[in-house]
Amino acid sequence: MLKIEVNLDDIPGEWLGHVMDLLLEAGVNDVFYLPIYMKKNRPGVMMQILAERGKLGEVRSILFQETTTLGIRYFPVSVHRLERRFYKVSTTWGEVSVKEGRYGGEVVQRAPEYEDCRKISAQHNIPLKNVYQEVWSNM
Amino acid sequence: MLKIEVNLDDIPGEWLGHVMDLLLEAGVNDVFYLPIYMKKNRPGVMMQILAERGKLGEVRSILFQETTTLGIRYFPVSVHRLERRFYKVSTTWGEVSVKEGRYGGEVVQRAPEYEDCRKISAQHNIPLKNVYQEVWSNM
Amino acid sequence: MLKIEVNLDDIPGEWLGHVMDLLLEAGVNDVFYLPIYMKKNRPGVMMQILAERGKLGEVRSILFQETTTLGIRYFPVSVHRLERRFYKVSTTWGEVSVKEGRYGGEVVQRAPEYEDCRKISAQHNIPLKNVYQEVWSNM
Amino acid sequence: MLKIEVNLDDIPGEWLGHVMDLLLEAGVNDVFYLPIYMKKNRPGVMMQILAERGKLGEVRSILFQETTTLGIRYFPVSVHRLERRFYKVSTTWGEVSVKEGRYGGEVVQRAPEYEDCRKISAQHNIPLKNVYQEVWSNM
Amino acid sequence: MLKIEVNLDDIPGEWLGHVMDLLLEAGVNDVFYLPIYMKKNRPGVMMQILAERGKLGEVRSILFQETTTLGIRYFPVSVHRLERRFYKVSTTWGEVSVKEGRYGGEVVQRAPEYEDCRKISAQHNIPLKNVYQEVWSNM
Amino acid sequence: MLKIEVNLDDIPGEWLGHVMDLLLEAGVNDVFYLPIYMKKNRPGVMMQILAERGKLGEVRSILFQETTTLGIRYFPVSVHRLERRFYKVSTTWGEVSVKEGRYGGEVVQRAPEYEDCRKISAQHNIPLKNVYQEVWSNM
Repeated sequence: MLKIEVNLDDIPGEWLGHVMDLLLEAGVNDVFYLPIYMKKNRPGVMMQILAERGKLGEVRSILFQETTTLGIRYFPVSVHRLERRFYKVSTTWGEVSVKEGRYGGEVVQRAPEYEDCRKISAQHNIPLKNVYQEVWSNM
Repeated sequence: MLKIEVNLDDIPGEWLGHVMDLLLEAGVNDVFYLPIYMKKNRPGVMMQILAERGKLGEVRSILFQETTTLGIRYFPVSVHRLERRFYKVSTTWGEVSVKEGRYGGEVVQRAPEYEDCRKISAQHNIPLKNVYQEVWSNM
Repeated sequence: MLKIEVNLDDIPGEWLGHVMDLLLEAGVNDVFYLPIYMKKNRPGVMMQILAERGKLGEVRSILFQETTTLGIRYFPVSVHRLERRFYKVSTTWGEVSVKEGRYGGEVVQRAPEYEDCRKISAQHNIPLKNVYQEVWSNM
Repeated sequence: MLKIEVNLDDIPGEWLGHVMDLLLEAGVNDVFYLPIYMKKNRPGVMMQILAERGKLGEVRSILFQETTTLGIRYFPVSVHRLERRFYKVSTTWGEVSVKEGRYGGEVVQRAPEYEDCRKISAQHNIPLKNVYQEVWSNM
Repeated sequence: MLKIEVNLDDIPGEWLGHVMDLLLEAGVNDVFYLPIYMKKNRPGVMMQILAERGKLGEVRSILFQETTTLGIRYFPVSVHRLERRFYKVSTTWGEVSVKEGRYGGEVVQRAPEYEDCRKISAQHNIPLKNVYQEVWSNM
Repeated sequence: MLKIEVNLDDIPGEWLGHVMDLLLEAGVNDVFYLPIYMKKNRPGVMMQILAERGKLGEVRSILFQETTTLGIRYFPVSVHRLERRFYKVSTTWGEVSVKEGRYGGEVVQRAPEYEDCRKISAQHNIPLKNVYQEVWSNM
């Protein structure tokens, strides 16, 4: 896995949400921004991308074509990921997927899938919080 | 005193250091930036300005002419400032101004003037930290 | 106009993008987040909302039902907005709306509409940056 | 309720955790920090305090004596707080207080008390997350 | 030395102060948070930990058991640390430890120990700032 | 290329603008700050520096002499930079340098030089924004 970074101080922020979408569509593992303080009193943004090494070329193209950067940097990172398993939990409004993570044979994470909960929330016009709470009670 | 605010998501960061300079030259009391997270995944910047009410027109002109904002907002704030007094402290490399603040008749703040210390640091090629430390010892 | 604020330290961040959407659908003028450092070493988030006074009840309902807050605070702010006018600019790929802002009779802002540019970018598979640059040249 | 603010660019960060403790002991409602970008490329901190008007004098004394500020500012904010009620929930490891908030007669918030959960976590050597999850299931 | 990182967007902030304590008790060198902007308009937090390689297993267990993360990442960093020496400085209220750092044979850092100063501040009911200032004058 | 980092929680922010200047004069490629949340409720700052490996000694000296840190850390990063070319663009007020970046034989970046634009803005007393806009139209 690589961490790829660019510092940006000469780009309108409104382009950056779009760049994030393009990078996620290109299959990177994650992309996020950090606020940074740059020289000459410039508020800037550091974009960080996590991607497999094979994606480097595509990420580089997107960054050079869609942002104003003249250079990117990257370095390898090791990753330890939990085994994941999905199962269904019933609620008053239908089923919701739950992502389970195991560590050393033991279940340590159980998280309702955000998009499932959000859809129920929209269709049934109930707070997202209530959907999560019912899933948590039933899982 | 007014606090004046604009949210910016469509301006290059490199313009904002320049806007800060112009506002300070125009006599505002302070100007600074806060990182904010705006809609559509946009990293943005909120500029906050502290200025006397009589400066509002000038600040507004600078903001509309130099940034991309289509609106500004402001509200009054009460201010409690310490009485300030300046005096000189001797160091190995010459005198430095110290700003003293009194609260209820008692001295609560004593701060070496940054620009004085920085000049000594540059002229004598010694770390700024050492200049401050000698002023602190002698004041 | 009111500025409405809540501090949040006991809510998963993934709910907050959803709350932002709900507030925008409810017709607030703007909503954004600020990173804050809270007691007991808690990284938190302050949500700020700009809305007309008549929206306060609806905003309050959304905040109490969709977030974990036990209180909201608000205060009035004065607003100065530029007169806005929209016109069309031609590009190689079709027309784009441009928002124009006037201050003291003079045009001070001209900004291509993000959604128009983004659509062209997606349909014609060209960088968003290039769409903006052509609009800027032609406007 | 007042919001009280100071901007700080000449104070070591390690003092600020201490100031936060003193302010909370003095009975303010909340205190938190925001990262800000100040002139001359200085990373700074804005401290914000929420307190009843009657606390202003005490807060001012603490700020002038314990920080390096030469001025504070403040403005009134309106507050809407939910009615709160506490009740007990049983867990495998003993009882935990839960704070309930009602809005328009309906329960909208139910939050396990952090300190209760943390004590159980420490005494029984189990993850804090597991304590919360059991309280959520039982409440 | 390793830098270990997790991105968090589905955890309440109030758990994170607790996780910081557990990691410090486990003997990591440092732990801190950075505000990040994640996809779907989510304000998130990146936790960074500095620890010796031999601590990786223990840090991983704490992160998987106490946070909601499904993966961690890490990479090696080189470290250059100053030789440290402690000595005592007398004040009106008793002795305070001072940490001294040497670089190339020369003393470049001298910092009063925070916990010593804080205890004096609490016992004698004097501002922490005044304790530091007296130590600085006497060291 | 190296990325060099220090965490700072015991330094006044006003020194850090000065340190940034010294590092840039020493020929580092970039230097910037990130807000971080450190233990004991301390708002802190991480300074990050990008520099060639041959600069490490000089950077280390500056950091140890000008800041309060007792240790620095660093790690290698790979860099991909665009070929750059400068050319001149005419405006009503004189020529401005434009930096062009090529990727795969194609021009992907064209950015007016900030300092050229700022000088025109100051000499002719026109908004920096207008200078950029004319350069963008003519390039």
